[in-house]
This record gives sequence, structure tokens and C-alpha cells, in this order.
Amino acid sequence: MTKVNVYVTLRESVVDPQGIATKDALQTMGYSEVKSVRVGKLIELELTDLSGDLDARIKEMCKKLLVNEVIEDYRYEIGEVAGK
Amino acid sequence: MTKVNVYVTLRESVVDPQGIATKDALQTMGYSEVKSVRVGKLIELELTDLSGDLDARIKEMCKKLLVNEVIEDYRYEIGEVAGK
Repeated sequence: MTKVNVYVTLRESVVDPQGIATKDALQTMGYSEVKSVRVGKLIELELTDLSGDLDARIKEMCKKLLVNEVIEDYRYEIGEVAGK
Repeated sequence: MTKVNVYVTLRESVVDPQGIATKDALQTMGYSEVKSVRVGKLIELELTDLSGDLDARIKEMCKKLLVNEVIEDYRYEIGEVAGK
């Protein structure tokens, strides 16, 4: 079993209303050190082992479904899940 | 400037409808190797440097606003942003 974490973030140039609201809330609560908040997604995939090109498969899933590349960037990490 | 990435995930015991829908969609698209998908949040904070206890401040923000500890787990990574 392979575990893949995909991190999806809004592109720098895209306004993030959820992040701005979170930043404002934190500042109102007294966390004046908070200068910026951006909220993205963490997608955890568990894959059975397959013989093909894992990187190519993951990139394909991201481009076709998980990520909207017009407004989002992504990166991913591959890790093995032991004992499964 | 300090950059903090907070990773928020649903607890193992909590059903994740968004993750199930994503898994079903991927399988329908032919990615039969996908056994499980869980969707969480990635919250990127930029903080000005302060003298206090950074870990304590971050945990406080998570507990008070960013994370619902009844249904969510979290972990975080601290990194410096150079040149700011």
C-alpha cells in the first residue's frame, strides 16, 4: 500500500476569501503577529501497489480531477504504508 | 517572518463524504488502485517574529479557531521565510 499526500494551494495571484476571513478572525482574537493566511487542501490517497509509473498516475489524477490548474498549484509526497 | 503550515485532517473514526465521493470518482475514471481518499485542510500562516513561545501560540490558534478537535486532528511545521 502506498500513501500519497497531495497539497493543493491557491495560486499566489488568486484572492483567498477564506484565508482573509481567517486572518481577520485571528487578529481580532489578539494574534496580531498573523500577517497572512492561505487555506488549501490536503488530499490523502491510499493506493494499492501497481506496476506502472506512479508519478505519472498521480499527476494525471491531479490534472483530471483533484486540482483546478487554472487557479491552483499542487505538490505531492509519496510514502509507503508499512504492514498493509 | 515565520511560515507555519498547519495540516488539519478528519479523525480516523469520522466519515469523510468528500473523500468517499473523490475515491468513487477516481475509480470510475479508471484509477482502480485508489483504495481510500481523505480530504483535509492545509492552512498556511505567515507570522511576524515575536519573542513569545511560538509553539504555544500556534497550538492556541489551532484549538481556538483553526481546528475542531472533536472531529479533527492537526499537526504543523514551522519554517523561516528568508528575505522578508
